[in-house]
This record gives sequence, C-alpha cells and structure tokens, in this order.
Amino acid sequence: MAELAVSPLAVELPELPPLAGVRLAAAAAGIRYRERTDLVLAELAPGSTVAGVFTRNRCPGAPVEWCRGALKGGRARALVVNAGNANVFTGRAGFEATRATAEATAQLVDCKPRRVFLASTGVIGETLPHERLTAALPGLHAALRADGWEAAARGIMTTDTFPKAATRTAQIDGDTVRITGIAKGSGMIAPDLATMLCFVFTDAKIPHAALQKLLARGVEGSFNRTTVDSDTSTSDTVLLFATGATRHARVPSDGGRLLRGFARALDDLLLDLALRVVRDGEGAQKLVRIDVGGAVTGRSARRIALAIANSPLVKTAIAGEDANWGRIVMAVGKAGEPADRDRLSVGIGGTWMARDGGVVAGYDEAPVVAHMKGREIRIEVDLGLGRGRATAWTCDLTHAYIDINGSYRS
Amino acid sequence: MAELAVSPLAVELPELPPLAGVRLAAAAAGIRYRERTDLVLAELAPGSTVAGVFTRNRCPGAPVEWCRGALKGGRARALVVNAGNANVFTGRAGFEATRATAEATAQLVDCKPRRVFLASTGVIGETLPHERLTAALPGLHAALRADGWEAAARGIMTTDTFPKAATRTAQIDGDTVRITGIAKGSGMIAPDLATMLCFVFTDAKIPHAALQKLLARGVEGSFNRTTVDSDTSTSDTVLLFATGATRHARVPSDGGRLLRGFARALDDLLLDLALRVVRDGEGAQKLVRIDVGGAVTGRSARRIALAIANSPLVKTAIAGEDANWGRIVMAVGKAGEPADRDRLSVGIGGTWMARDGGVVAGYDEAPVVAHMKGREIRIEVDLGLGRGRATAWTCDLTHAYIDINGSYRS
Repeated sequence: MAELAVSPLAVELPELPPLAGVRLAAAAAGIRYRERTDLVLAELAPGSTVAGVFTRNRCPGAPVEWCRGALKGGRARALVVNAGNANVFTGRAGFEATRATAEATAQLVDCKPRRVFLASTGVIGETLPHERLTAALPGLHAALRADGWEAAARGIMTTDTFPKAATRTAQIDGDTVRITGIAKGSGMIAPDLATMLCFVFTDAKIPHAALQKLLARGVEGSFNRTTVDSDTSTSDTVLLFATGATRHARVPSDGGRLLRGFARALDDLLLDLALRVVRDGEGAQKLVRIDVGGAVTGRSARRIALAIANSPLVKTAIAGEDANWGRIVMAVGKAGEPADRDRLSVGIGGTWMARDGGVVAGYDEAPVVAHMKGREIRIEVDLGLGRGRATAWTCDLTHAYIDINGSYRS
Repeated sequence: MAELAVSPLAVELPELPPLAGVRLAAAAAGIRYRERTDLVLAELAPGSTVAGVFTRNRCPGAPVEWCRGALKGGRARALVVNAGNANVFTGRAGFEATRATAEATAQLVDCKPRRVFLASTGVIGETLPHERLTAALPGLHAALRADGWEAAARGIMTTDTFPKAATRTAQIDGDTVRITGIAKGSGMIAPDLATMLCFVFTDAKIPHAALQKLLARGVEGSFNRTTVDSDTSTSDTVLLFATGATRHARVPSDGGRLLRGFARALDDLLLDLALRVVRDGEGAQKLVRIDVGGAVTGRSARRIALAIANSPLVKTAIAGEDANWGRIVMAVGKAGEPADRDRLSVGIGGTWMARDGGVVAGYDEAPVVAHMKGREIRIEVDLGLGRGRATAWTCDLTHAYIDINGSYRS
C-alpha cells in the first residue's frame, strides 16, 4: 500500500502526561505492515473498571464479541490492539485467535483472561496470525512505560495519516483526575459508531455501572454525530477504563452529581477525538460542520443533519468548493423527516442564501465563495417547524477517497 | 460545463417506431445550455389517460407538485419537459412558471391546463425563465412529428452521456399494442425514485386506475431497485400515458387478467430503462448487479441489496477491481436487517468466496479477479435464514463521479 500524505486537516498530538495506573507499549509484530508498529499493549492497575460501546453492525468481528462478553465482568487489567487484520468473518479461527491472545496476555499481567480486552482493525476475512501476536507479547510487556501514549496512538493506526489523542482534567469533589484517550479511524466511519477504535483512560475510581452510563452518553454526542462515508465498521469499539489510582471522594455506582464535571470533561474529550477522526477522513480536504435547527424534535434534527453529512452530492460539491445549497435542500428532503419546503432556510459560513423556501433577494455569493475555499465549512439549516436542534460533522468527498479505497488491499 | 465522455457502459438507442396517438418535438430554448436542445413537447391524442409516480423527497420541485394535482383528473393531452433548470425551491415564482407553461401549452393543443404535464431537471434554486419556454412552444408545436422519439430522448438529457429509450409490444386479448419509453438521469439516483425522469407511452386504451396500478408495480421492480449514489432527486417523475389510439378489447377499470401480458412487457421495459440510467451513472465504469437470497423476507432482502449497492466502500472497491468481499459483509451487517454472520455466504461472478461465516477453503481468486476486470459485475449474497430474495443494481464509484459533481454548476 502506498504511503498516504498526511491529511491537510491534521492537528498536532497534544502533550500526554502519565496517567496513574496505566502503562503502555507498542511493537512491530509483522501482522501485515512492514517496518512499523502494529501491536499495542496497555496494562491497567488491579481493580480497574471498564465501560464499552460497540458497533451495531450485525456482522461484528471476533474481538468485538470477545469484549462484549468480557464487559459483563465490568473489570479490566489489559488491552491488546492490533492493526492490519480485523479478525472479522474468520469463523472458529477468529474466536480461537481472541482466546489465545487473551490467555497469553492474562498470564503476563497475572489476571483472568476475561479481564483482557481486545481490538483488531484492518482487512476483513483473513485469518489473524495470532501466534505472531502471542510471540510479541512478552517483549511488549517488558517494554511497558507510563509515557507510552504516543507510541500507542501510532501503533493502532491503519489508513490513518496522523495519530490521534486528547487529554483533559476534571474535578471530582475537589480532587483532580485525568482523562486521556487515543483513537484511530479514517474510513468506514459512520454512526453507530463513527470511529473504528477509541480507548479512553482515567485515573478516577468509578464503578462500572456509572462508567458505562457516562460513556454511552458521551458517545451519543460525539462519535455518533460524525460520519465520513456512511459505512459502518464491523470492528467499532470505544472502551473507557478507570484505574482508580488517584484518591478522591467515593463515587456511588449510579455516578450522580459528583461526576458532573467529569462527564463534561469526558464529553469534550470524546468530541475532540471524534473530530480528529473526521479530520483524517479518507481523502478529506475540508472539515464540515452541519447545524440543524427548527426541527420538530432533536432526533429529527439529528437525522436531517446526518442525511446532509452522508450525501455524496453535498460532499462532492464541498470538495469542489461549490456553494451548491440546492443539494442541501435535496438532502433535507430525502431524510424522510418532517420538512416544509416553504419554511426552509439554508446558510453557509454565516450567510443565509435561502429563506422560507426561496432564494434570499439580492443574496451576495462573494462571502460564501470565500468561505468555501477554507478548510472548515459550516452549513446551517433552519426548518422553521419546532425547537429540535442537532449538529453533525463530516468531511468532503474527494478523489483521494477513491484512490485509497480502490486499492486498499493491494 | 465541460463536455462529458460517453459512458463506457452506454448502449445503443433502439429503433423507435411511431406510436399511435403520440407526436413529439424538441427545440433549443436556451434555458441553460448553448447549442443543444433543452425543451421537449409531446402531444397526446384526445382521451389519453395517464398514471404517475413521483419522488418521495419532502422538498419536491414545482413541476412535481403540478403533476400531482393534474394526475387527479387521470387524463393528459400534453407533456412539456425542460432540461437545465429544475424549478425546485423557487417559491411562488416556481408555481407561476408551471402555471404559465401549462396554460400556453393548453392553448396550443386545445385542452384544459390540468391536462398538461410538466417536468424540469437541472440546477435547483434558480428561477426558471419560463418566458423562454412559452416563446419556444409555438414553434415546437408546429414541429411535432410521429418520429420525434430520438429528438425527445436527447432533449431531456442533462448530465446524461447518452440518450435512453426502450420499446416493447404486448398483446391485449389478441391485439398488439406498443409501449415506448424515454428516460433521463445519471446522478442523484436512488429509490424512491431511482431516476429523475421517465416517460412511457402506449397506444393501448387503459383506464387511469388500472394504468396507475400497473405503473406503481412496475416502478417497484425497476427504478426502485437501482441506485447510483443514494441521493434522492427533488424532481423524480415517472409518467405513463395511454393514448387508446389502437383498437383492442375493452379493459375494465381494475385492469385484471386482460393486462397480464401488458404488465409483463411494461415491467420489462421499465427495468430496461432503469438499467440504462444506471449505465449512465455519473462516472460509472461498471454495472453492478446484486442478488440477495436467503433473507427472512423479500423486504429484508431488498434493504440488504440496497445497503450493498449504496456502500461507498463496496463501490470504490469495484472501481478498483478489488474483490473485497469483506466490505460486502460489512454492508450486509450495516443494513440493520436480520443476519447471522455464521450462516452468511458471499460470491462474486459465480464464485463463492465465503460460505457459512468463513472463507471457502482453497478458494481460488483467479476467476474472481478476471470477473472484476469486466464491465458487468455480479455479487451474490445468501443469508441462509429464509426465502426472501431481491435484486438491486448500481454502478461503481469513480474519480469521474467527483469530477462531475464537484463542478456541476461551473
């Protein structure tokens, strides 16, 4: 596979300080790629809790099924991620690969296999050479470091052109905790979920039930509002680990008021990571934000925003820097949600070009044309029907998307 | 707009003999294009009945609304189609344009305006200069000819790279009638409807109610099974006119047994036209047929077939001649329909590459690689769950799609 140029929308990796209770390492296990890391191990302190959200695709990969089972225990000691082979549609061999990997890891970190979480991304339908994974694990375990964050963010990449991570702090009853996440993904990105893999860690001590609630809510407002190509991965996984290695007030199992600040910081971090994934959308040249208001409900607004975000005609128009608002009208109409053409308004970059079903009289295209030439495009739609609002993010559809996806396996 | 190369999937226009009760003509009214015809008039014999099926887009164009109203009468005397301006999202001016065009035409053919049917395709949101239409109508009316079929098929084109028409004969109780249709469309093609415009004419005498039933059924098996880019036009229109100019046994208003042969010929003709539209899918290099079997119901099979047909990742893989069946598995899973990964089988070009949830042992990729290099690609999916079957058609997603749609308005 040819080397891909870094996305013009790429953003820098932030400073990633150590997080109490987490050590990480990456290695080159030679699963598919040459001369790059493709295997990541994260070790979590004893007592760590975990929450997870997975793809709704009906043909999920073996690692997703493994994680769903392991999640029932609510506790985690390790995470193993490989890039290059998704271990999807691999039948019995796929399950055996997950079991063997979890058992080998469990032995190294001294826990039950069900406390090991797994994720794989890459090609579908090829048997995962898990003996290469298990052979690389002891060395990886010996190399675990508290400052292994960047190595981990790079080791989980596939067609990604830049590594993705974000970090935040939050207060729990006056004590400061940290939340750090890494993510990968650039194609086959759509709700639910919008990314292939995202792993978030905190040193807070949060019971599994509360953690799960926080994660589900956070994903709804971030990854489930972004789309690259409407295709849903068979491997999408978001895991949130809480090591409890930092001392703070005890959090009850239902979370509650104490976690308000934490929830805000988590939501913010998840959206940050989701937008980094969109910025690396295959072939993306422009980041597109779509704000829909005036819909009959929030759910209706969300569907309309995603219909616009997924429309190939809207996305190619943006790639061509064409302020073709007629295609936005088309996409609103195709969403199947309540819409009244004669109340509909459409704006780009802060300029309303269509109001209440017709072109704005004397509408000056110049500021819109200038906006379309930028890297970040904003589309606004007002349905004029109710108070439902939603925002979605996507990228444009360019030649590079076709280059990347027409030759992924070659 | 740059001249587009003719689609490599183009097929020849068939011989189109006159059809009793229909005369047609095309003219260059200068609506948008230079040096080409862009306005078509078809005159129908007095007493002609009509059936229609329209876009489900919630923001339809003014001509679609006009036709919906006119269809209530069930009778037609004329059809006026312009290319280059869709008369969509044009507010009051859009309605006025339809009324003025219908009134001018009604005067020429001596009928009520409500017996004139209208269709417009092209750019959205620009006021239709209907005085150019009405100025061109008298000349067009004087030029009407029984052999104007090819001129009409060419006059309705927008981004089409070749004209589309088909003709059939059918027996009604021993008497031969003819059915001829013309269609246009190459982008913004998805159910419902899958084409922008299709006009079918027959010299049979069929009551409006029976005609409407035949058309609705025929569209379901043809245009509603094809997709280019999942985008739904605001102008999609299929009209079926029956002039009654050929003598045959009287058809009751519910159609019934007498129309069985006619229905078969009509279904066949509609599918022929729908596939011509897919063959002209923007940027298409390959025609793709997707057969889904073993689904729990026919409806479920249809949704899965269309999920595959609309997947950008499947479509780019086909453009790259990559037999990437993993993406087909992904698309099956994302359809949200009942599917069991461990019973799923996938084949391309007659070779089953995955059976019952895993790769076929010793699967030889050579015949599949050869098949992928061809112009017509066949994908088969067996869900192994029930007896539901459906077929969908699409084309690949290529660079040319982005070229065409990134600069449509320029």
